[in-house]
This record gives sequence, C-alpha cells and structure tokens, in this order.
Amino acid sequence: MIKVNENYLLLQSGYLFPEISRRVRAFTEKNPLAKVIRLGIGDVTEPLPPAIIDAMHKAVDNMAKRDSFKGYGPEQGYDFLTDAIIANDFASRGVSLATDEIFVSDGSKCDTGNFQEILGLDNVVAVADPVYPVYVDTNVMAGRAGNFDGKGRFTNIVYMPCTPDNNFVPALPKEKADIIYLCYPNNPTGAVATKEQLKMWVDYALKNKALILFDAAYEAFISDDNIPHSIYEIPGAKETAVEFRSFSKTAGFTGLRCAYTVVPKELKVWTKAGKEIELNPIWNRRHCTKFNGASYISQMAAAAVYTNEGKKQVRKIIDIYMSNAATIRKSLTTLGYEVYGGINAPYIWLKTPKKMTSWEFFDNLLSKANVVGTPGSGFGAAGEGFFRLSAFGSPANVAEAMERFKKI
Amino acid sequence: MIKVNENYLLLQSGYLFPEISRRVRAFTEKNPLAKVIRLGIGDVTEPLPPAIIDAMHKAVDNMAKRDSFKGYGPEQGYDFLTDAIIANDFASRGVSLATDEIFVSDGSKCDTGNFQEILGLDNVVAVADPVYPVYVDTNVMAGRAGNFDGKGRFTNIVYMPCTPDNNFVPALPKEKADIIYLCYPNNPTGAVATKEQLKMWVDYALKNKALILFDAAYEAFISDDNIPHSIYEIPGAKETAVEFRSFSKTAGFTGLRCAYTVVPKELKVWTKAGKEIELNPIWNRRHCTKFNGASYISQMAAAAVYTNEGKKQVRKIIDIYMSNAATIRKSLTTLGYEVYGGINAPYIWLKTPKKMTSWEFFDNLLSKANVVGTPGSGFGAAGEGFFRLSAFGSPANVAEAMERFKKI
Repeated sequence: MIKVNENYLLLQSGYLFPEISRRVRAFTEKNPLAKVIRLGIGDVTEPLPPAIIDAMHKAVDNMAKRDSFKGYGPEQGYDFLTDAIIANDFASRGVSLATDEIFVSDGSKCDTGNFQEILGLDNVVAVADPVYPVYVDTNVMAGRAGNFDGKGRFTNIVYMPCTPDNNFVPALPKEKADIIYLCYPNNPTGAVATKEQLKMWVDYALKNKALILFDAAYEAFISDDNIPHSIYEIPGAKETAVEFRSFSKTAGFTGLRCAYTVVPKELKVWTKAGKEIELNPIWNRRHCTKFNGASYISQMAAAAVYTNEGKKQVRKIIDIYMSNAATIRKSLTTLGYEVYGGINAPYIWLKTPKKMTSWEFFDNLLSKANVVGTPGSGFGAAGEGFFRLSAFGSPANVAEAMERFKKI
Repeated sequence: MIKVNENYLLLQSGYLFPEISRRVRAFTEKNPLAKVIRLGIGDVTEPLPPAIIDAMHKAVDNMAKRDSFKGYGPEQGYDFLTDAIIANDFASRGVSLATDEIFVSDGSKCDTGNFQEILGLDNVVAVADPVYPVYVDTNVMAGRAGNFDGKGRFTNIVYMPCTPDNNFVPALPKEKADIIYLCYPNNPTGAVATKEQLKMWVDYALKNKALILFDAAYEAFISDDNIPHSIYEIPGAKETAVEFRSFSKTAGFTGLRCAYTVVPKELKVWTKAGKEIELNPIWNRRHCTKFNGASYISQMAAAAVYTNEGKKQVRKIIDIYMSNAATIRKSLTTLGYEVYGGINAPYIWLKTPKKMTSWEFFDNLLSKANVVGTPGSGFGAAGEGFFRLSAFGSPANVAEAMERFKKI
C-alpha cells in the first residue's frame, strides 16, 4: 500500500500567495468592475529592457542553427554566466569565488527550498519571524519542524522575532540552532543588516558550527553604501554560509527563471560520528541528479544584465521601483501609519491601524480601496498586526493606490 | 553542529554522465586531434524548427512591452500550454484530463527525481534493471534505498531484471512493491511495452494499492500503432499511475527546459493509519512551494509544438533521429552485434562482444573509434555486458561512427 509523506499533512492552510489569489478572485467575481491594484505578491511589472531583449533574440536565433544550437548545458550553468557573476557580484566587492562554487538554477524559491535536503533531519532550524514561508514549509515537508502548536508555530523550529524594537534583525537565539535562515534586505519587513550585525551572526555560526542560509535576493535594492550586499563581505563567512541570489527582482526575471546559489569550498558539515564532509560536492551531486540546468535563453538574458548597457538599463528599473517605495513611505507616513522598510528594499512593512489583524486589514483594504497587499501574519506569528506592500507596481498604480488609502 | 544528510554518502561513485564526461575529457586532452563523435548522453543535436523559433521570438517581444510582459506565471503552467497538452497528447488518444491534473515543469529529470518526496519513506521501491539512474539515486538520497550491497545494488530496493529473455519488460515482482518506476519506450534499452504488458502492471498496482511512476519521455518515438503512448490508455491507470512527459527529446528542448507531469485526481495514497488521501493536492502543494513555474518563453515554445506547422516540423526531426536509429541497427547487425531497441525508441542497446564489460567496451570504442556511448552497467547490474548508443547524433556523424565501428 502506497503511503504518503505524512509531514505534508502538518502543513498549515494554503501556501500564502495561493490564498491571497483565492480571496482576490472571489472579490473580483463579485465586483467585476472593480479596478484592483495588486501590491501583494512580490512580482515585477516593468518590461525587460533592450539589452536583455536583444540577448534573448540572439539566443533564440542560436537555437535555430546547427552550429550554435544548445542542448543540455552544464547543470551548474554556462561559464559565460558564472564568470560574469563572479566578476560583477563578488570580485567587485572584494570577494573571490571560483566557478565551481556557483550553481546557476531556475529560481531562488527552488534553491532555498531544496537546500535543506542535503542536511540531516536532526539539525535544528532557526528562522526569523516574520519569514518567507518557503523556509519553514520545506522543513515541515522534510520532517524537521516537529508538530504544529496550534498557534502558528512548529515545535522543533526556533523562531527569532523581528520587531521594531530590534530593527527587524533578530537577536542570537538562546536555543541551539544548526541551520539559520537569514534574508537581507529582508522579505517581508524591508529591513537591512549592517556589517556589524552580519558579523555577529557569522561569528555565532563559526563558534557553534552552524550553517547560515543567506538569502540575498534583494541585494540590488540596497541604496546605502555601508550595507553589505553579500554575506561573504564578512570575514569567515565562506566557512559558514551559503548565499542565494536571484535575477527575479534584480532584473525582472520572474517570468524567465534564473538564479544562483553560492556554496564555498571552505564549507564543512559533519556526520553524526563527527567526520568532516565538504558541502560543495554534496550540493553538486544533488544539483546534477535532480536538475538539468537553467534555460540557455534565460542564462543568455542573465549574462546581458552584466553588460554596460544592461547594468544601466536594469538600474533605471530598480530606480523606478525604489521611487515607488519612497512614494508609499511618504504617503503612508503622512496618513499616520507606522511604516518600516522601503529604503534599501522594495517592501514596505506597515503596522495595521486600530489593532486590526493582518487579514482584517487585507479584507478591508481589498474591499474599500481595491488594493491587494500581503497580510503580515502570513509570514509568521510575529507578523500579526503588520502588512506588506510591494513597490513593484507601476508608478501610476502606486500613485492611485496611495490616493485610495486616503479613503479607508 | 551542522549534520549532513548521510544518505548522500551512500551514493555510488559519480553520477553516470559526469563520469563519462570525465573520461572523454581525459581522452581528448591526450588526443587533441581526435574527432570524437558523441552517441553517449541522450542529447539532441538538430536545431529547433521555425515554428518554435518564431514562437520564442514572439514571446521575447512580449517581454519587452508593459501590456504583454509576463512575470510569475501559474506554478502549474499557463492554460495556453496545458490546454494544448490535454487536447493533443491525451484527448486525441481517448484520454480525458482536467487542467489541474497537469503540472508543467522545467524538466522530467526534476519531476521524476522530486516526485518521491511526497511519498512516505517506508514505501518499497521497485525499479527495472537496467534503469535511468535518477530513479534510484533520488531514493538513495531520501533514505528509502537501504545500504549498498557492494555489488551494484541497494538492499531495500526491488530490482526487476530486464533482459532479452523478457523483451526488457520485467515480470511482476515476488516482493511487495509500493512505488514502481516504469519507463516506456525505455531508456536505456529502447524496448517498448504493449497494451497487454502495461495492463498487467496496472492490474497489479490496483490490486496491491501500489503507485506506478510512468516515464513516457520518449513516447514521440513510437512508430508502431499498437503501442500505447500513455499509460492512461489502460483502463484503471488513472487510479494508480502518475505520468511524466517531456519536450526535451520530443521537440529538442534539452536546452530550453520544459516538461510536464500528470497527477490524476483519482489517485489515492494512504497514511500509516489507513486514512485515504488524494495525491493531486499534495503534489500541487509541493510544486507551488518549491517551484515557481517554467520559463514563459519555454512554455510559448512548447505550445508551438502543438500547432499544425510545429507538429509537421517536429515530426521531420524525429524522422531524422529514427532514420539514424535504423542506420545503427542495420550496420551493427551486419557487423554481427546482438542489437535491441531503435525501432520505437531513439536508443540502441547492444550486447558487448567478446564478453567485454560495459566500461571496457566504452574505453575500447573511445580509444579505437573515437566514439562515445554509454556503458550499460551505468544503468544497473543487469546492464553489465550491454552498451547504449543514442540515435540523436547528426546523420553524418552517425554514418561516420558506423564506419569506424568496422575498425574495432
């Protein structure tokens, strides 16, 4: 008799974004004339710039000719892309990496979700709260989370509250933690971590032989020169951290699918018997066995992001989104909202007024202003009473949404 | 202290294809003038036809304009593609499926590797031997395989030998089996299963409440009208089988990445306590949590495969490969080899001469004829003494390779 992985039955309700879609669909079915503005899911809206479009047309043409046709590529990505990644994202910031420490993939959701697979089930997982749900849900699926406590948390996961009091950078946990998920610039709070704050985490991980899974999907939105873009800017981080990067938000690739993960060769893990094991070849084995490379066309598009023209054009788009973020911050502050984030990150994290729950505010905002945001409680218990707005809408929609906020 | 998933340490040597690459690289470094012909890895070589190229150019242009720009798509794939899949691959053969039974992905390697995740660890896995290594390796990684016996097999996996005696379709296992991987047309043997043979398996699975994971990645190569293309052509199969399909071999998408998996709503699995669970929503949850949709451009390309022009052009390419297969069969038969497959599948499975091991034949063929094939033993113990040639080379290369076979 075929048995299900019963860990899946521990998962709570729907995954956050499908639930939002469901409520929006129900609303628009009842109100077909409502012009709904979506500032909920973190999806981009600006079209891709010419440098990227040109690179993709060229890639498509290459697929039409025998001599330039590309079949399976290296599972870890083409050198033309990994070389550009190393030079532009790391060497330029004083971080040296080798080609075989970069694993190109089809998305950071996949990478952050899959990475835990190569780690033992008896590791203790620590996450910020609020947190990107994928970190928790994939550990629930694997059986590392324990039981649901009925109050929004799993018994074996260490939750590290992120609140205005700690500027949304958690304190070191009192409990033992082996796998620590950190995301800066942060989704959902829009907070950033300083060098000193990241150093505290790297030192903790080195001392405790813990592994930091560092999600830097939003690094391109950092405007403050003093904020690190990569955890490897912190001495010792290569011995203790994996870093996830994505072209989705940086360059508008949510529909193209390209990302990468850095697994330094210095990284060590251990068997129960205490034998030291290099992590890089283990991830390489996983990557080669369960993945067959990112689309050649998406990789050509990603390489174009690093050309001179590409850099300028992508920067312009990021500036549009960050101008949206400034608009949202300013408007909501004027309206008396308590507002966080939106300076080095494309997310604004607001405190719901009148002690509304996050979903109450969601329903209220949808029905009265026809604006979709993301309930903070969907990101964890400590997100209750908060609400995320994304700066990825078009400037016109963002301006219109801010007008409508005045009415609620 | 961070612990590794020790199941990974049970994996044997390198994954087959990286090992082949390593040996070929070593050979070409020593023999830089040798013109090596690769009939090893099952990668296509024909460029993509105009209907697919045009669809991709159009998709790229859509990404350049705000109104047609596509960000995140549905994780399960765009309706324009799933509708075409249902109409062309299933309705046309008398099989009705609903949109939410189709899960578009970035590859069948990923899907066949990932599917076991949603099933309990105490299920007994049965595989054909020889077998596509991903089925076994991903179960080793999950901890479902037991220990390596030192002779090429894992203690908890049921191996079902496929030999000339059973026409490479295994007999029903005497042992209990909960998860049964079947692949027809078969990789690596090139064998096909008749309706009667598949019915035997479906009936077995229904009776034993087992799950068949049916890999039909090569169905487009079937030339015999009586051979089923989908397992759902067998009555009852929807209650007991998942089917994997791919555009990689069908339409030359190995570099584009697009595939799909069918999970019928009739499929049930059970908890240890005997509670019945629908499998479709469980896979949907996995798919939405760890995957963010296939590239929009690849999906547009896949949809073009189903247009009238696309069908004709793709058929032409398949005919080229199957003409290669016929050339290989004929040449090797004339040379006195014992040859299987190559009629309804793009693989030729030959018995090595002079009782050579598979890797001895590999090294011999590489050094004397500069032709790369795949050692049968890389697919399992019962593949020892066999060798796989792929028909995916260019006709000129295949003809040249057959000339060189005369010399060894």
